[in-house]
Parts: sequence; structure tokens; C-alpha cells
Amino acid sequence: MRIYDIIKKKRDNHQLTKEEIEFFVQKYSKNEIPDYQVSALLMAIYLNKMTKEETAYLTEAMMNSGDVIDLSKIDGIKVDKHSTGGVGDKTTIALAPLVAACNAPVAKMSGRGLGHTGGTLDKLESIPGFSIDMEVDDFIDAVNKHKIAVCGQTAKIAVADKKMYALRDVTATVDNISLIAASIMCKKLASGANSIVLDVKTGDGAFMKTLDDSFKLAKAMVDIGTEMGRETVGLITDMNEPLGHAVGNSLEVIEAIETLKGRGPSDLVELCETLGSYMLVLAKVADDFDDGVDKIRDAISSGRALEKLKVFIENQGGDKNIVDDYTLLPQASEIIPVKSEKSGYVSKIEAEEVGIAAMILGAGRETKEDELDLSVGIVLNKKVGDYVNKDDVLAYIHLNNMEKYKSSEEKLKNAYKITDEKVENSKLIYGVVTQDEIKKF
Amino acid sequence: MRIYDIIKKKRDNHQLTKEEIEFFVQKYSKNEIPDYQVSALLMAIYLNKMTKEETAYLTEAMMNSGDVIDLSKIDGIKVDKHSTGGVGDKTTIALAPLVAACNAPVAKMSGRGLGHTGGTLDKLESIPGFSIDMEVDDFIDAVNKHKIAVCGQTAKIAVADKKMYALRDVTATVDNISLIAASIMCKKLASGANSIVLDVKTGDGAFMKTLDDSFKLAKAMVDIGTEMGRETVGLITDMNEPLGHAVGNSLEVIEAIETLKGRGPSDLVELCETLGSYMLVLAKVADDFDDGVDKIRDAISSGRALEKLKVFIENQGGDKNIVDDYTLLPQASEIIPVKSEKSGYVSKIEAEEVGIAAMILGAGRETKEDELDLSVGIVLNKKVGDYVNKDDVLAYIHLNNMEKYKSSEEKLKNAYKITDEKVENSKLIYGVVTQDEIKKF
Repeated sequence: MRIYDIIKKKRDNHQLTKEEIEFFVQKYSKNEIPDYQVSALLMAIYLNKMTKEETAYLTEAMMNSGDVIDLSKIDGIKVDKHSTGGVGDKTTIALAPLVAACNAPVAKMSGRGLGHTGGTLDKLESIPGFSIDMEVDDFIDAVNKHKIAVCGQTAKIAVADKKMYALRDVTATVDNISLIAASIMCKKLASGANSIVLDVKTGDGAFMKTLDDSFKLAKAMVDIGTEMGRETVGLITDMNEPLGHAVGNSLEVIEAIETLKGRGPSDLVELCETLGSYMLVLAKVADDFDDGVDKIRDAISSGRALEKLKVFIENQGGDKNIVDDYTLLPQASEIIPVKSEKSGYVSKIEAEEVGIAAMILGAGRETKEDELDLSVGIVLNKKVGDYVNKDDVLAYIHLNNMEKYKSSEEKLKNAYKITDEKVENSKLIYGVVTQDEIKKF
Repeated sequence: MRIYDIIKKKRDNHQLTKEEIEFFVQKYSKNEIPDYQVSALLMAIYLNKMTKEETAYLTEAMMNSGDVIDLSKIDGIKVDKHSTGGVGDKTTIALAPLVAACNAPVAKMSGRGLGHTGGTLDKLESIPGFSIDMEVDDFIDAVNKHKIAVCGQTAKIAVADKKMYALRDVTATVDNISLIAASIMCKKLASGANSIVLDVKTGDGAFMKTLDDSFKLAKAMVDIGTEMGRETVGLITDMNEPLGHAVGNSLEVIEAIETLKGRGPSDLVELCETLGSYMLVLAKVADDFDDGVDKIRDAISSGRALEKLKVFIENQGGDKNIVDDYTLLPQASEIIPVKSEKSGYVSKIEAEEVGIAAMILGAGRETKEDELDLSVGIVLNKKVGDYVNKDDVLAYIHLNNMEKYKSSEEKLKNAYKITDEKVENSKLIYGVVTQDEIKKF
């Protein structure tokens, strides 16, 4: 088998075999095929596309290019949740204790954030003492004992994906549904989950800008999961404005805790109920969707989810007192209100612009090497559908370095679109994709 | 300007500007853009194609990536001839003295052969003492004095083309009309010709297998020449059987000399008359095609072309006595006839198979590093349209190493197709492409 012939075959729009895909992924991850041949192949894949079968083979080959974690020693059905990334997406921090409180095991391996969207690990690390470094055995023990643990993905997972993503990033071959789906799913599968709930963000602030592409991506990932014998559900959810109000690491932790206290913002609460219910159903802990929602609501109102969060934090070395005293979390020295320049209805809050405004303050990384300021960020005071008078506060900027204020404020003001006509609240859930059907709401 | 944006633009099937094409060609030739980005771009170009304008910009940029030879000190209009490569194509060796004998200057820079087609330089070097290494000034002096000189292309010509061809070769991006046309034309233009006659070979033994592709390539090259202000004519000529009878370096030199002595094989003679006439017309030495053919025929019958060959050989350090005594050329130790296994008409002689049969003997290079045996090769005794009886000699194998006989003979026997039905001789000239029209014969 020769890589040249594989490139030629894909160039001529023929379907690659499992063996051909395994060949190039294996050889590439071992540095036995040069970048310049793989980038030509990736462009041919980008332009000629991959079939469902090819996408599954690619995912499996990438999964097998690194460690595959064995979670079989954990009791119960392990359901993983994955978000394609959005602004203000602190869902995991509320959802993991919620699901664990309902007795479904949560064994989550997370990543760090890059660009305008934050990462769960960075957010959790704003809790003093909290550590995401765990050996696999300790990770398994923690889940068996407490039903919950979150650790960082090891560098040895899906080695080929890491190399290939870096190459795609510089050769304009990122935005291809098959390549995106395979990249996400190979890591989820290598992390050992039995079932997977996907939160595919859609809109200006998301990776997938259009509803059509978002459904396609969800379908591609559900197909891969099905092909690999893992029950998979994909939700398509809104990212035309940030999720909740807080954007920034410790600020988002606070909002997640408020959600467990029953005081969360309505969109975040709805998302936790929806994703959580699907997770409980897949874990065979809830009978159906409505039963799942009831169980999630009960975990909040009973206080069990909040207790679970404390156990989770303590077990990973963090200070559980932050749950009752937010001043123990990193805090910014300045909080400055940003006021509306006119009256009207908020019709849109461009999530990407808000994400960049927070990144400028130090809440996000522009390059992998950037150090974060875990205390800074933005808290939205008005959301889509709200009416504002001139000089009402649109949002608060939490920051430590006044030099960064001007450019962050400018981004934030640009993000808010205000119109005279009355505007409905954003829709949150656009649809759900399962093995059997695609439902659009 | 960023290479990433250029890749993305071509990926999305938009037309690149002159500046964008210059940017990537210049940067790439200076090693300022990595191979893996250029290979992605080449695959995008391969699949989305290039317009006529883009192809011309690419040619010009590649021409300017190395030395551009100034032949303005040579008197008269310099007409260059280029063949896309075929088996048994010794045309230049006969044609150059023919055209020079008609008083048109021939200042030719040639390449070496690779694969199943031979190179003019290798063939000329089978003449004892003959050298193709010349300084540009000596080259110009030789043409002014004798109307003829042939030297090797310097490594400094079209630097970007050399790099890009090596990359295309391993990324399955060779067979694209625009890329092929630009690669050929940038070298012709950098070599300083005023006008160009192109011999586009078509058929099984050629780079272009179909008549349709051959016309497209000719048109693309004529368009580039026109765009760059050089009068260009493209002939589409047959390569469904080898040209003439001889395949192999010294054997082909002998056949070219025989042609100048008026005893050439009919297809080679017709090709020399046709290409020669177009060269004379472009050089403004002949009034029209018929006048050109008359002049070429007269150069043969008068003996002036043969005399010109002797002057040419002597001027480049070769032994001119080979013209009268072929035993002075390298000779193989064995000549073995290959006989027909059945009776019938020769319907086809697969040129590529014959080329490979000769390469196996040592007449051609499989890799750039291979050393040639200039004496070996194949002489066809039967051509398409000939009737053969069982046991008639189809061809003779000239070789020095009997170990190579079996596999060469097998290729050669496979090359010959013999049928019961009467078969016409191959057509030689399929058409001509000029700036104004495409004529199909």
C-alpha cells in the first residue's frame, strides 16, 4: 500500500477502504508519512468529502492512534457529554454534579479552551486547590466512590488527531463535517464512554454558523457513535448570544453554583435539564425524557446536586467553602458598567464578540502559551428580548488592568444590537438527532 | 498577504489574482512557505482548476523564479521546439540541423530523460566527445556563427517549477492541464525563445492519453505563449506507436542521421517536415507552410542539413566522423531478433511498453540516479499496418547484459498487437492549435 495511491484515489473521488484509512492514520501518527502528502490528502477529502463509512473508519483509526482508556471497572453506564464550544458555556460544571446526584456515573475528560470559547478545565482551576491531574486508577476509584470526577485529557489520546488538527489549521481544511466529526468523536471514544450526549452549538458564536451545518455535524457524529456501538444523541442548541450571563472563569463557576442553588439563568437551567435528562435516559437511570427532567429538577430542589458539587471539589483537592463564599474565588479589582447608548429591544448579542471582549481582558487564550487571569470577565445584564432604556447597564466588565478596558468595551458595545421592534427571547433548543430520527423544534 | 488565505480562496473555487500567485511562487521558491501548505494549494488547484489568466500568471511567476536567459544578441527570430515526450522521439537531432540549414537560428536548451521517454541530451552524449555544457556567452556565439547550438538547461532556470514538480510528483497533482502547461512554458520562456513550436504527443505512450486532453494542453500552452507575447503553435502528433524504428540513445542518433541522408522512416520524416516548416514560418524564413516544407526537403536533398550536423557536432567537441561511420558510436555486444508468434496485421505497438523494454536494457532511467548504457535499445522491424508471418522478426533487441533479455523481450512481445483484419497505418498529425484556431485533421 502506498500513500500516493490513496491520495490519487480520493482525488478521483473514490471511496477509501478501512485498510487504506488505517494505513495513512497509523503511518502519519508514527511520522512515517510527511505532512505534505497528508495535507494534499486532506484537501482532496475536504473537496470530495467522505462517506459515512469512511468517516467511521477515520474515527476508529484516530481513536486507535493513542491510548484508549478502559473504564469498564466503573459500575454503571458511563455517559459522556461534549459541547462543540460556545461563549459562557459553563454547563459541565453544573451538569456533572446534577447527573452524579441522580446516581449516573460521570467520568469526564475535558480539554482547555482556545480562542473566544473557554474550557472546563480552566474554569474548574479557578477554584483554589482544585487539581485536574489524576492517574487513571484514581480517576476510576473516584467515580466508583463519588459518581463524579473530571480530569484533563492525556497527551497520549488520539495522537493522529492532534497532529492532523495542527496541519488542518494551517492548510484551510478545518471546516469539513466529516473531519470535524471524526476529530471530536475519536477523543470521546478513546476516553472510554459507553454513551454520548453531544451539544452542537449553532449560530454566530459557534463553530457551526448555520442550522443546516449544525444538523449535519450532529448527524455525522451520531452515525459514528452508532457505527462504533455507542448510543449517541445530538442536541442542536443556540449560540447566537452567550449562554447565561457570565463569561470568564471564576464568574462562570459562580453562575454554575447559582444554578445548583436553584437561581440559575433560564437558558442555562433549560440546557442542564435537557442535556441532563438525555444523559440519565442513556445511563438507564431515567425511564424517559420527562422522567429525566423531573429527576434533574429534584436534584436541584433537594440540594443533593449542591452537596455532590462539594464532594467533587473536595475530592479533587479544592476548597469546598467557595460554594458558600464566592469571595474565596479569584476576584477582579475593578467592575465597570457598560451602558446602552440608546433605548430599544436587545435583538442580538454576538457571542463571538463577547468572547473576544473577555479574551482581551485575560479570560481566554489567543495562543496556547497565553496565561489566563481567572478572575476577569464579563457579566451580561441584558439578554436578547430585554428592553433597555438609554444609559441602562448592558453588562459589567470585571478586570484588573485598566489598559485593556477600552478595546474590550468597544467589542462588547458592538456585540449588542438594539432595535425599536419588540424581539422574542432566543430559542434555546433547535432539535435533536438520534440514531433513528432527526427532530427539528 | 497570507498563504492560508490563498489556499482558502482556491479551495472555495475563486480566481487567484496575479499578486497572490506571485506571492506563493516567490515565497515557495525561497523556502519561505512549507511544502505542506503548497501541496494543499496544489490539490485545490488540481480539483478546482485554474482559469486561462491564472495559468498565465503562474507561468510568468515560475519563469521569474530563476534566471531568464537573454538571447537578444542572437540575430534573427529564435524559434524553440518542445516535445511533451515520446518513445523513440529523436526529432530534435534531425530537426535542429534541418532548420539551421534553412538559415533560422536554433538556440536550444534541452533536458534529460526520465522514465520510458528519452532525453535529447542523453542521445547527443552518445556521440564521442560531444558536450552539452556551455556558458551562455559561448552558446550565443555558437548560434550566431553556426545557426545552431544545443545545451543543457541550467539548474537556475525556473527554480519554483523544479521544487513544485517534485512536490506534485509525490502528491498526485501532476496530471492537471494548467499545471503541466505552466511547467513546460515557464522553462521555454525562461530559455529566451521568441516563438515556440510545441509537439504535443498523444496516445498510450504519451503523457496525454486522449486526443481531447492533448488538444486542451496544446490550447493552454498556446494561450500562455500568446499572453506572454510569444507566437506559439501546437501540433498534436501520434504516440500510439514509437516514432520511427529506433529506441535507445546511439540507435536514435543513427536514425536521425539517416533522416538527414534522405533515408529516414516515413513518420519521422513527415514530423520533421511539419514541425520544421512551422518553425521556419515563425522565424519568418518561409512564406507559408508549403514553402517551409519545400525548404526542409531541399535541406535534405542538397546535403546541407547533413553538413550542418557535422559542423554542430564538431563545434560542441564531438567526433563528426560518426556521421559516416556508425561503428564509432557505442555499440551493443548482442543483437537478438524477437519473432512473431502468429501471422496477421500489426494493429498497435504500445509505445510505453516499448519504452519500458528499452529502459530495462539500460537505455532509460527509472530514477534520476540511474546510469545509462548509451549503446543498448530496440529497433522495430515492423510498424502498425505491416503484415507479419509467424516467425517474422518484429524487432531487434540490442543489449550487453543477457540477464535483462527475458523481461525486456516479454514487454516487447506484449507491446505488439496482431489481428487478422487489415489495419491502416497510424495517422501522424491529429491537428494544429494556433492563437486563432484549432484545426483537427
